[in-house]
Amino acid sequence: MKSIIPFKYENGLLKLLDQRKLPLQTVWIELKTYKEVALSIENMAVRGAPAIGCCAAWGYFLGIKSLGSVFSDKIEFEKKRKKIFNRLSSTRPTAVNLFWALEQVSNVMEDDFESYLSSLEKKALEIEEDDRKSCRDIGKHGALSLPQGEISVLTHCNAGALATAGYGTALGVIRTLHENGRLKMAYADDTRPRQQGARLTVWELMEDNIPVTLLADTAAGWLLSSGKIDAVVVGADRIASNGDTANKIGTYMVALAAKMHNIPFFVAAPLSTLDFSISSGDEIEIEVRSPDEVRKVGDIYRTVPTVAVINPAFDVTPSELITGIITENGVAHPPYTDSLKLLRK
Amino acid sequence: MKSIIPFKYENGLLKLLDQRKLPLQTVWIELKTYKEVALSIENMAVRGAPAIGCCAAWGYFLGIKSLGSVFSDKIEFEKKRKKIFNRLSSTRPTAVNLFWALEQVSNVMEDDFESYLSSLEKKALEIEEDDRKSCRDIGKHGALSLPQGEISVLTHCNAGALATAGYGTALGVIRTLHENGRLKMAYADDTRPRQQGARLTVWELMEDNIPVTLLADTAAGWLLSSGKIDAVVVGADRIASNGDTANKIGTYMVALAAKMHNIPFFVAAPLSTLDFSISSGDEIEIEVRSPDEVRKVGDIYRTVPTVAVINPAFDVTPSELITGIITENGVAHPPYTDSLKLLRK
Repeated sequence: MKSIIPFKYENGLLKLLDQRKLPLQTVWIELKTYKEVALSIENMAVRGAPAIGCCAAWGYFLGIKSLGSVFSDKIEFEKKRKKIFNRLSSTRPTAVNLFWALEQVSNVMEDDFESYLSSLEKKALEIEEDDRKSCRDIGKHGALSLPQGEISVLTHCNAGALATAGYGTALGVIRTLHENGRLKMAYADDTRPRQQGARLTVWELMEDNIPVTLLADTAAGWLLSSGKIDAVVVGADRIASNGDTANKIGTYMVALAAKMHNIPFFVAAPLSTLDFSISSGDEIEIEVRSPDEVRKVGDIYRTVPTVAVINPAFDVTPSELITGIITENGVAHPPYTDSLKLLRK
Repeated sequence: MKSIIPFKYENGLLKLLDQRKLPLQTVWIELKTYKEVALSIENMAVRGAPAIGCCAAWGYFLGIKSLGSVFSDKIEFEKKRKKIFNRLSSTRPTAVNLFWALEQVSNVMEDDFESYLSSLEKKALEIEEDDRKSCRDIGKHGALSLPQGEISVLTHCNAGALATAGYGTALGVIRTLHENGRLKMAYADDTRPRQQGARLTVWELMEDNIPVTLLADTAAGWLLSSGKIDAVVVGADRIASNGDTANKIGTYMVALAAKMHNIPFFVAAPLSTLDFSISSGDEIEIEVRSPDEVRKVGDIYRTVPTVAVINPAFDVTPSELITGIITENGVAHPPYTDSLKLLRK
């Protein structure tokens, strides 16, 4: 099955599908420098934890590529390398894949600059290809774990091809169900304030002729109480050792409603989303974004432009509400402190 | 304290503040016929259960006013009267105040047409003034029942002056807290798809210098888990004998999150919102509105324009999640089957 690939490194340029403009405009932007990559992560031209990780790796590669002239001066080079690393690290605080990918590329080192660059490029490509393969495997493990037969699935935000290097995590599961003739309907929450559900999930599923129905975020509780939904599957931005999961704001309320109606609630994410350095979700930093994301829709104010706003980008779903965590190595079930360790590479 | 009054009957015209245009435009529209009133209820130029009831009463009055020439022909008059009644009844199915108010004006009857009209006008005005008084009393009972001291309150949708004949139900409680120096902060959910929170609640509170902070609907669970909120207060469109409450879509998920964090969740509504003819929320008809409300924001498509949509306008919060129901006669607590009966006029 085809699925969009939202970025591609080619001839010195990182080409990005601008996700702020979808679905009404399909615009590719071309990034030449690590600073442009950092800005594109910050302003969410690219978003989704695994996609951010991949693009940060490419950004690091582009940054190092410009340091040929200082490579021989180890002190100067290390100063500039750290600047690149720090700039890319500081783009967004919550998704751990960003730090994981930067760690991966940081560990690459060679004495010869050309060999170094070539190894870095190989590593960035490997991260990207591994992610694509992980998504396929997540799809298979998910299809095995979700309720059997033909089912309807609710998802929140976009954990799709657009959020990864292709195919998707939560939408990877939905794609696999569809490929196996088992998807009755995918339901997509709007996902305010940035509407990744309405703009991205709807678009990518319709592009691939996968049946999808859109709802306002406010309607998820009603839908889960209606008997129409067999399972919920969402992505993740960071998963603590105990299974607590940070994901797009609103996920927590969907999980509460799923629990209330005994509907299985799954998280789908590659192992790079796991953060074994923290014991629970309390330790996850939640990004707070601009008030205008809530005041406006697109470019238009929908409220009094001076109103105070609180705009957290993520919330934490406690592990007690999570039926299973679907990774490329298999599905973890509670207690996660034990099961996640076993799946670790 | 001043508070906007969103409609006014004067010299043969029902003047309505067009709530579809707020807050960026303040436009008053003038309605001459019952058909115009019916359309304005359907298209939500006026909305909010008590306000719909009041305007339906004025619509009925305007309809009867045009029947002077057939008043003496009892059969013809009754046919036309029923047509007016049915047109106004069929505008929106969920808010019971509509049917209650139409019942009130239907019960008016006099032999002389001029006296009849005069009694009808008096009845419509009485419904309106009673509603305003009820809101003040709801405010007082609410301020007595909510946690004491200076508190922060979350609300959903707009149960304010704009949803009533003035002052508001849920916002009536918030206004009273503010008047008594007890309101730390009112938090308002955006309330997609129609954004009554962002557009109406924010506007009317800011107009009256009441502190308000806006959040995306998706952020309510995060906010309730943050410790910032002392109580939730919402309005209602219909309350069953057992306390199950239909209110704006999304209310149910807010109630679930409030329960999870042991935050008291109150419903504020006049007794005209009670429907003793039904035993539980299962019997409440939930209005399903146009897909374009979800596909668009304002006039602009935000998703693939052909996507399937499910757009229920209300959900039912089961009585187990409701700490108290605040009416003009006092506050009902569980078990509601007993307590609501005692408050009944």
